[in-house]
Amino acid sequence: MTATTPAALDLRADLLTLTRAVCDVPSESGDETALADAVESALRACPHLEVLRDGDAVVARTALGRPTRVVVAGHIDTVPIVDNVPTRVEGEGADRVVWGRGTVDMKAGVAVQLALAAELDAPTHDVTWVFYDHEEVDADLNGLGRLVRTHPEWLACDFAVLCEPTAGGLEGGCNGTLRAEVRLTGVAAHSARAWTGRNAIHAAGEVLRRLAAYEAASVEVDGLVYREGLNAVLITGGTAANVIPDACVVTVNYRFAPSRSVEEAAQHVRDLLDGYDVVVTDAAPGARPGLDHPAAAAFAEVVLAVTGGAPAAKLGWTDVARFSALGVPAVNFGPGDPLLAHKVDEHCPVDQIEVSHAALRAWLTA
Amino acid sequence: MTATTPAALDLRADLLTLTRAVCDVPSESGDETALADAVESALRACPHLEVLRDGDAVVARTALGRPTRVVVAGHIDTVPIVDNVPTRVEGEGADRVVWGRGTVDMKAGVAVQLALAAELDAPTHDVTWVFYDHEEVDADLNGLGRLVRTHPEWLACDFAVLCEPTAGGLEGGCNGTLRAEVRLTGVAAHSARAWTGRNAIHAAGEVLRRLAAYEAASVEVDGLVYREGLNAVLITGGTAANVIPDACVVTVNYRFAPSRSVEEAAQHVRDLLDGYDVVVTDAAPGARPGLDHPAAAAFAEVVLAVTGGAPAAKLGWTDVARFSALGVPAVNFGPGDPLLAHKVDEHCPVDQIEVSHAALRAWLTA
Repeated sequence: MTATTPAALDLRADLLTLTRAVCDVPSESGDETALADAVESALRACPHLEVLRDGDAVVARTALGRPTRVVVAGHIDTVPIVDNVPTRVEGEGADRVVWGRGTVDMKAGVAVQLALAAELDAPTHDVTWVFYDHEEVDADLNGLGRLVRTHPEWLACDFAVLCEPTAGGLEGGCNGTLRAEVRLTGVAAHSARAWTGRNAIHAAGEVLRRLAAYEAASVEVDGLVYREGLNAVLITGGTAANVIPDACVVTVNYRFAPSRSVEEAAQHVRDLLDGYDVVVTDAAPGARPGLDHPAAAAFAEVVLAVTGGAPAAKLGWTDVARFSALGVPAVNFGPGDPLLAHKVDEHCPVDQIEVSHAALRAWLTA
Repeated sequence: MTATTPAALDLRADLLTLTRAVCDVPSESGDETALADAVESALRACPHLEVLRDGDAVVARTALGRPTRVVVAGHIDTVPIVDNVPTRVEGEGADRVVWGRGTVDMKAGVAVQLALAAELDAPTHDVTWVFYDHEEVDADLNGLGRLVRTHPEWLACDFAVLCEPTAGGLEGGCNGTLRAEVRLTGVAAHSARAWTGRNAIHAAGEVLRRLAAYEAASVEVDGLVYREGLNAVLITGGTAANVIPDACVVTVNYRFAPSRSVEEAAQHVRDLLDGYDVVVTDAAPGARPGLDHPAAAAFAEVVLAVTGGAPAAKLGWTDVARFSALGVPAVNFGPGDPLLAHKVDEHCPVDQIEVSHAALRAWLTA
């Protein structure tokens, strides 16, 4: 018995209703239990699925004895809510969107997964549906990474699709990501006698100047163009309002093309910030596009027949890199404009949710 | 009944022992109750004193019917402890120092007050001994300011001495202090697509550059020279390591000569940071030296006869400004080098504690 009634998800509801229901259960990284419980409970009601649980990751899979097995995966956590939950619907007809935290990154994709998991009791590939936690935070907390370590057999497959937002397009590979701290030091003193100390926050000015002046590269890899970015994402310094600060830390995030290794990326940051104490605190390599693999090519053929369009580079780091590291080809395909991910006005066209659903359905029933 | 045994202070112990005992009861701003309890309890044991309490401020006073009443005041709080409590004694003979948080700012001064309060049962002036809280934080939390509002009659006097650290010298007036927030805004975005956002932390670079390049003035007021300072003391920005930050706040502290009003000081900061959103969050005016007042002159004559030296400008803001605002002349006089206030290696010569005690004793028994 639990102390509270878990949120209930109706996987047979229309896609818009299901998307909103998933978004309206808050699940900021580290606080995914309520949504994971709801997902697990709804999937356990499907007799054709075996359901597994690890922490706040839920895995549901068919066991039809098909010659191929595919993974369709998505994360259930979001970046912090900023007064943008519950969701609302705006616009009419083809312009209709669902608005709110997670609609893009990536609960509309999760809703498509859930609907298909419930609906497809006899897909043409065996399917392992993966819903995981902690994607929006430190790479070492990532729920899919945890499954790789603790239950690698749950992820065994011939091909994987991540339903990360691609605006309904097919995106290959992904940029790598690296986080580093630039640690500035000074000498504390009473601020009434500032000249007896040395101000660590003032010292950060030059670091920020270099970052502001930095021009990010665009790098072609296997025919797709990866645009990079290098930014300060956090800054903190000082201990009290009457003390000259003796420490300031600028956290930078470098998104780098999959042609660079983590080591090369770290050196690039060190070169830019030469003369400063740069400590890499978190990093994950990118993934090359991989669209030349037969399983990826077959997926692309069916999906692009439904959606139109051509493959493009994935710019955000996604967990395709984890499958890539396991030797499994993987692509990104999901509803929502990635340009709106993490924004306050995050919103997703309802049409894209429906087209994504139709395309994946076509692939799994072909 | 209380749950814990309060720390006991022996006011008849030698000055070094008493100073260490006062320092060894931690009393960071907001957490002064244990020390205030100990001070109150020790003073209540002195039959010649009436003891009053307001929050964590303790006031003890004689009622001898003398023609003049003086206040001798000090704050009992400190800036945060950084592994520099308990105290220790270093050096020998004239080089002997007591080392640790609060030894300079300003528990050696508090120890001198406590020793004299207990010892002098018939001073030549009626004396009001004031021990107060929250001096090291926002001006609107200041315990002496609270007493001015809630019990102004407790502070009634002809002349006031603050035992703030002056290295045993006599310091007149004080600089004013102003705190302002420089608020930078941007547009949040996923850090994988940084070019769709606008980085608020990068925008702080120019603010820090101007502050680093700023040259503080030295201003002569009534014959004493006040050195100013303008510094970033705190900085915070960003929400998550994968989000382009849409907000960054730089907190600056301006220490300004008593010839400037708070309004003039605010304008000076706005002029330096023209083009930025500058919001004044806290300010306290300075105090002109006031050494031409007869009560101040009489004090100076007796004290300087013991200590030697000449009056100087007080650079740090002190609560002499509150007495100044009440029309009461007030000076700073206490042990400890103010250049060491708030530093990790804060320490105070034992000789200065003894000389300060002797000088105040000479004044109150003259």
